[in-house]
Amino acid sequence: MKLNEIAKALNLECESEVEISGLNSLLDSNENELSFLENKKYAHDLEKTKAAAVFVKKEVALKVPENCIALICDEPYLTLAYASKLFAPKLIETKGSDCIVKDNTIIMDNVHLGKNSTIGENCTIMSGVFIGDNVQIGDNTVIYPNVSIYRDCKVGNNCIIHAGTVIGSDGFGFAHTKDGKYIKIYQNGNVVIGNDVEIGANCSIDRAVFKSTILSDRVRLDNLIHIAHNCKLGEGCILTGQVGLSGSTTLHEYVIMGGQSATAGHLEIAAFTTIAARGGVTKSITTPKKQWAGFPLFEHRQWLKLQGKIAKLLK
Amino acid sequence: MKLNEIAKALNLECESEVEISGLNSLLDSNENELSFLENKKYAHDLEKTKAAAVFVKKEVALKVPENCIALICDEPYLTLAYASKLFAPKLIETKGSDCIVKDNTIIMDNVHLGKNSTIGENCTIMSGVFIGDNVQIGDNTVIYPNVSIYRDCKVGNNCIIHAGTVIGSDGFGFAHTKDGKYIKIYQNGNVVIGNDVEIGANCSIDRAVFKSTILSDRVRLDNLIHIAHNCKLGEGCILTGQVGLSGSTTLHEYVIMGGQSATAGHLEIAAFTTIAARGGVTKSITTPKKQWAGFPLFEHRQWLKLQGKIAKLLK
Amino acid sequence: MKLNEIAKALNLECESEVEISGLNSLLDSNENELSFLENKKYAHDLEKTKAAAVFVKKEVALKVPENCIALICDEPYLTLAYASKLFAPKLIETKGSDCIVKDNTIIMDNVHLGKNSTIGENCTIMSGVFIGDNVQIGDNTVIYPNVSIYRDCKVGNNCIIHAGTVIGSDGFGFAHTKDGKYIKIYQNGNVVIGNDVEIGANCSIDRAVFKSTILSDRVRLDNLIHIAHNCKLGEGCILTGQVGLSGSTTLHEYVIMGGQSATAGHLEIAAFTTIAARGGVTKSITTPKKQWAGFPLFEHRQWLKLQGKIAKLLK
Repeated sequence: MKLNEIAKALNLECESEVEISGLNSLLDSNENELSFLENKKYAHDLEKTKAAAVFVKKEVALKVPENCIALICDEPYLTLAYASKLFAPKLIETKGSDCIVKDNTIIMDNVHLGKNSTIGENCTIMSGVFIGDNVQIGDNTVIYPNVSIYRDCKVGNNCIIHAGTVIGSDGFGFAHTKDGKYIKIYQNGNVVIGNDVEIGANCSIDRAVFKSTILSDRVRLDNLIHIAHNCKLGEGCILTGQVGLSGSTTLHEYVIMGGQSATAGHLEIAAFTTIAARGGVTKSITTPKKQWAGFPLFEHRQWLKLQGKIAKLLK
Repeated sequence: MKLNEIAKALNLECESEVEISGLNSLLDSNENELSFLENKKYAHDLEKTKAAAVFVKKEVALKVPENCIALICDEPYLTLAYASKLFAPKLIETKGSDCIVKDNTIIMDNVHLGKNSTIGENCTIMSGVFIGDNVQIGDNTVIYPNVSIYRDCKVGNNCIIHAGTVIGSDGFGFAHTKDGKYIKIYQNGNVVIGNDVEIGANCSIDRAVFKSTILSDRVRLDNLIHIAHNCKLGEGCILTGQVGLSGSTTLHEYVIMGGQSATAGHLEIAAFTTIAARGGVTKSITTPKKQWAGFPLFEHRQWLKLQGKIAKLLK
Repeated sequence: MKLNEIAKALNLECESEVEISGLNSLLDSNENELSFLENKKYAHDLEKTKAAAVFVKKEVALKVPENCIALICDEPYLTLAYASKLFAPKLIETKGSDCIVKDNTIIMDNVHLGKNSTIGENCTIMSGVFIGDNVQIGDNTVIYPNVSIYRDCKVGNNCIIHAGTVIGSDGFGFAHTKDGKYIKIYQNGNVVIGNDVEIGANCSIDRAVFKSTILSDRVRLDNLIHIAHNCKLGEGCILTGQVGLSGSTTLHEYVIMGGQSATAGHLEIAAFTTIAARGGVTKSITTPKKQWAGFPLFEHRQWLKLQGKIAKLLK
């Protein structure tokens, strides 16, 4: 879609005919992508962006770098929300080739196989599974009944996905208008799952708003886990039952999270960190290999000590 | 069903042939409904009831208003449980007209469409969706794979319901007999969802025991959220991942609840209230526009101060 | 499978041709089962085992009882993981008899019925339900849409299972190799559900690693509940929304757990115990009929007192 067409659709001024392939964050955008700046906290990212154009407020227009076009608007985030709809893929593809199913793969009854999708060798796809359009599944992967995999997602080799799990549902994103309406930010990214990953029953793993929510090789998820959009789980991370990760959480490799623990959004947890059951992480953890507990979070030893002190209040 | 027939089925005495359409609470009952009083806490509601009849203990029979018949029993709540079965609709309708599907609506493969149901224009109903009997779905609504919508529920226009979500499952209600058996209270109400509502993946929204569990226009639910029977969510409420609402919780408009927060039952939360992640609400919040956190719940500033004090215990 | 064949597959030394039927814990094994000892904490169980053979480290080999063969290895738990694969049943049976469906049972559309399974009289099995191989379901049981019941599980009479629930998914079990790989412990047990049990929507109940995860008669589960492998719920237990039980938790009869409460693994809770909402149980509770709250857990009165003391810190 050409930039001037996008601008016209949004009632903005722009003559440029540069071809725009999609939306992205300031730092991740390439020269064919469109980005935005709402929160001044990220103003330093604006200077570094390679985006073709950005939605910005008038007062920061001068800070837009040379090769980037400023699309001036009052509410950049809201404008982004309207723009996201222009790039949303179809709910269902009606054209394209039938799903390719490779040798020795079993497709049980009542399975939906989307257009332009591929399922590798030696897989078992059980009853009631939904494989959306343009999905890729590797070899030797088992998908249990009633799993839903939304369009454009990828699952690697030797994976196991238990019943009822949803992969690629929309992230929870919307902008507000001044009169209290919510404008959906279409979640045009996907979910990418590596090799040798096992996911429990009735989990939900949201697709990214831009690019990918990522579960790296050897990740293990227990049941009823919520992974919000744009999370990145490093190699070998282990998440126990009912864990919840807010949006854009990054877990480095081999992070372990106990049952019902959770994170706030936009933070990083260093490699080999352990979060005890019910731990609530609200700030990034930068030192690897430590153990943490509680909400607010303390180092595990400190938390135990604190519980001792609290119990003493009773005396 | 006539009142004397109901009484007979329950081994109670009553000659009245008034037609009873269903069960309801004391305050909500109309002159064709049957109610109950178990807990003396609600005795003042008894005086105001318009119900045709009530199950009551002998000692409060005199307080039953003039136009209302007292059905005297030892355990009114248990009697209500037995009565609820008499009004339970069929699990599956075998008669009635086929589901009406309006123009430009796509019904994918492996979808069940119940009797006497209606689906509006421009909808997309994806594979594996179950639409029960007597369900009404508005226009432009998208229902993702493997969603289950139980009988009698209503979904408005421009809604999005993500995969695996269950709408209209039975509320968690039962009475106890003296010898430790549980007698199910049939959940004869439904769920009513307004317009422009988006619901995430693998949520569960229980039907009401009487009348309706309500999600008003523009409500937004993230993933893995539990809404118990008879909750009412006002316009524009936003519930983040893994929130749980106990039965008969009322959220007024634009309440925001953070991840894993929850409420006890039978309480109200004032408009524009914000509950931080993990907040646990155990009493009604009557002042609007405040922010709360913690469990037990404090005003957010107080909670932050308290955490500071607690951390000091370590020194 | 003969013991010498198993040993050969695992690169261990053993000549015995005793027939091994499966794996089990030290205390539960019979004379045709194979067990293991990794953690010295359980060394006293070794002396009592009736297992045909055990995987043990060299240093405890002398403590293996007379009629039990010591299979010496460096990492018994990891060896068990490799062995578990040898006993894993097929993902899908292709042979065997078709599912037996008894009189007056309704099977709706898009249901999968596994081989060698039986469904009793007067049941209703709704659309999108998956009944795996070798499953037994009693009489008068209702299974709502899109429920998945994995192979070998049993459900009793007069049960109700709400939509989206998963029964028999794999427990969360794996051993680690020294180079950071996870080796799956195949979960070769099942789930056994008694009579008159009601289970809410979108729950997940994992199958046992050995033997059975058990829900006894009259258990009531609300929505979005996680029951890990090898839990045992006594008669009449009531679990409210979003409760999570870690592996090998035993609840004795009539335990009540409030919303979002949880347990650590390998513990017991005495009969008629009540755990308040959000309670976190980390040690066994041996005295029956008490009420508990908080995390860490206190007796309910103590917890209330403690909250009062904590609130005073603010003054």
